[in-house]
Amino acid sequence: MKKLIGNAVVGQSGGPTAAINATLSGVIRGVQNGEGCIKTLYGMRNGVEGLMKKDLLDLTKFFDTEEKLSLLEHTPAAALGSCRKKLPKPGENDAFYEEMIAIFREFDIRYFFYIGGNDSMDTVSKLSAYTAKCGYEMVIMGVPKTIDNDLVGTDHTPGFGSAAKYIAITAQEIIRDCAVYRVPAVTIIEIMGRDAGWLTAASAIGRVVNGIEPDLVYLPERVFDMESFFSDVRAALDKHPNVVVAVSEGIRFADGRYVGEGTQTGATDAFGHAYLAGTGKALELAVKAEIGCKVRSIELNLPQRCAAHAASQTDLSESVRIGASAVAAAENGVTGAMVTVTRTCEEPYTVRIGHSDVSLIANRIRFVDDAFINEAGNHVTDACCRYLLPLIQGEPAVSYVNGLPQHLIL
Amino acid sequence: MKKLIGNAVVGQSGGPTAAINATLSGVIRGVQNGEGCIKTLYGMRNGVEGLMKKDLLDLTKFFDTEEKLSLLEHTPAAALGSCRKKLPKPGENDAFYEEMIAIFREFDIRYFFYIGGNDSMDTVSKLSAYTAKCGYEMVIMGVPKTIDNDLVGTDHTPGFGSAAKYIAITAQEIIRDCAVYRVPAVTIIEIMGRDAGWLTAASAIGRVVNGIEPDLVYLPERVFDMESFFSDVRAALDKHPNVVVAVSEGIRFADGRYVGEGTQTGATDAFGHAYLAGTGKALELAVKAEIGCKVRSIELNLPQRCAAHAASQTDLSESVRIGASAVAAAENGVTGAMVTVTRTCEEPYTVRIGHSDVSLIANRIRFVDDAFINEAGNHVTDACCRYLLPLIQGEPAVSYVNGLPQHLIL
Repeated sequence: MKKLIGNAVVGQSGGPTAAINATLSGVIRGVQNGEGCIKTLYGMRNGVEGLMKKDLLDLTKFFDTEEKLSLLEHTPAAALGSCRKKLPKPGENDAFYEEMIAIFREFDIRYFFYIGGNDSMDTVSKLSAYTAKCGYEMVIMGVPKTIDNDLVGTDHTPGFGSAAKYIAITAQEIIRDCAVYRVPAVTIIEIMGRDAGWLTAASAIGRVVNGIEPDLVYLPERVFDMESFFSDVRAALDKHPNVVVAVSEGIRFADGRYVGEGTQTGATDAFGHAYLAGTGKALELAVKAEIGCKVRSIELNLPQRCAAHAASQTDLSESVRIGASAVAAAENGVTGAMVTVTRTCEEPYTVRIGHSDVSLIANRIRFVDDAFINEAGNHVTDACCRYLLPLIQGEPAVSYVNGLPQHLIL
Repeated sequence: MKKLIGNAVVGQSGGPTAAINATLSGVIRGVQNGEGCIKTLYGMRNGVEGLMKKDLLDLTKFFDTEEKLSLLEHTPAAALGSCRKKLPKPGENDAFYEEMIAIFREFDIRYFFYIGGNDSMDTVSKLSAYTAKCGYEMVIMGVPKTIDNDLVGTDHTPGFGSAAKYIAITAQEIIRDCAVYRVPAVTIIEIMGRDAGWLTAASAIGRVVNGIEPDLVYLPERVFDMESFFSDVRAALDKHPNVVVAVSEGIRFADGRYVGEGTQTGATDAFGHAYLAGTGKALELAVKAEIGCKVRSIELNLPQRCAAHAASQTDLSESVRIGASAVAAAENGVTGAMVTVTRTCEEPYTVRIGHSDVSLIANRIRFVDDAFINEAGNHVTDACCRYLLPLIQGEPAVSYVNGLPQHLIL
């Protein structure tokens, strides 16, 4: 097979994570230690938006020390910046793709690496489809990233383990905090995940470590019923006064309305306006109105995806490997693919890094397995905790200066 | 001076912190290494509430290894449980105090240590006043604790440094996260502090470390004016698209209404019902309505006070010293006092642990110094950051098992 010789470009897209820069570091390392097909690695600022403006950085030149790469690996969010641009369908607006190809020609770019989630894999898929028939020979690779863990074809996604670790740690700390008073109280933790409940499930990992977990866990994979919820909470309050509930932001009622958006029939006043209430807040008000005890809701919000100080070392190490594997596969001529992770052994936990046709991955959602949710639909199973546990192992050696973690800014 | 020989009791009260158990450990260490006046140290479950029910734990017996004490020091929230009980004024309900003294007699308790904030110092003050004239000889000591840093007579309070560190780290991570997109956006971080703005000020510590801090910082020490806020935000957006604002939950309008509670004149609909909107949410809706850009609000919530995984080692070490000093002072006959911290040198940072009459401390609030707030009232000064910086130094050696920090449960 003839090797493609030229330059490469890498971009980050979609929501940031604590590990997406570790993946970028992996791509840089992959190029530095690769077969030499790639001469210069450019970084696009703000994903394809920057690419179209030729807003490119010479990463090969910038990352000339191990120290810089290590710092990059411990920096949260997307060091290159991100975007949420959806590409036109090939055939619908070929002028867009022609303009992009012209930029590739100008910079002699033969390799395109895109680190992102579902929407970014759509970009990779469309660009692969276009380049396959446009006569400009190049390699297009998707590198997965999403805290949501909802990409198909891979055991898990880079970024998820760190978010899961932060959530698991924070749930433990909140449970401790809530245990100090004897007054009956319900604390509702709202966790990210519009479609899939993986992150919310992570709040329960403590079960297989020290037996401490939220009393109730609700995922978007199951229909949320307010009456069952009230009866679950009452049963939990009968056992002990400090009830902690973890809920996905994306839980919905049987009619499809989001709990956080909607107002219950006949209870409009109790829930306030839809634009005000998040899922946790809506449930807080509902419990207050129905049960009348002390209630608090906590939205974990952005720290879930950017708390690099509490990242999972397993996640960071795998993210670097995945980035490097994308380069190795690309130099071997693989194109139109996304890097994947296969769990080869449960104990000791081992993985194999491979790749799959990106068109089979883009625009699909991987939900939490049925076997991972209990029958009542109000908690996760032991099997779920055992699946999650290896992903949160290890604490990164974050470099602190004057009490604060150091971050690399490009 | 005759030494009082007998037993001691220690309690934790008020809101939990990441360092209140380090202070408890200090009291235990103080007794273990003390002059021997104290035979048995009891812990009251849920503060004075547990004391009145004789719900006491033999801490001398339980904490028989260095390992247990170390684990206690890294456990967030109050290991003994807490309460929010206000004692009657001596003279108003002497039966209450007589009952308490009877319990002291029964357990031969001659030393009373109470770890807490403002309300707890009120308990210490009242109990001191009562015991001073009731004929039962005993020593009453207050040991400070509050993330709010609002006790007078002390340079800072144990628990504050850890909360400040968590807030400073999280602000840095959120600023990184918000920097990834080019679309104009405002992110509002709501931080605890009903009366004093110390915690919110901590979001800006990064300024003297790496030059990175929120664009705007609003403390309850200054009147909040919505029009000035809009013009501040507009000016910040003119400089760069990703504006981050830190606000204390306790900021108020000129007429005394809390921003989070109130609805602005003529703008009721934009702010929704008072019971729904927190301060951050109220400002989010206000910016959305007035400026129209993307806005997000983040309430840091309980993790501010319970994120032991990101505690300040300086805070934990001082908390242990403060607990031990309370015992040493008590064994020397000091009573009716609260342990205090005096900063003896700025660089290198050193402190002296002393004590002050608790009646001069209870029920007073220490606000952020005028010199620590800028003239426009929308940020903190360099002097403020320099005051805060030493308090967040050092990362504790948290013991992780299977990816989660270990906590001690009593």
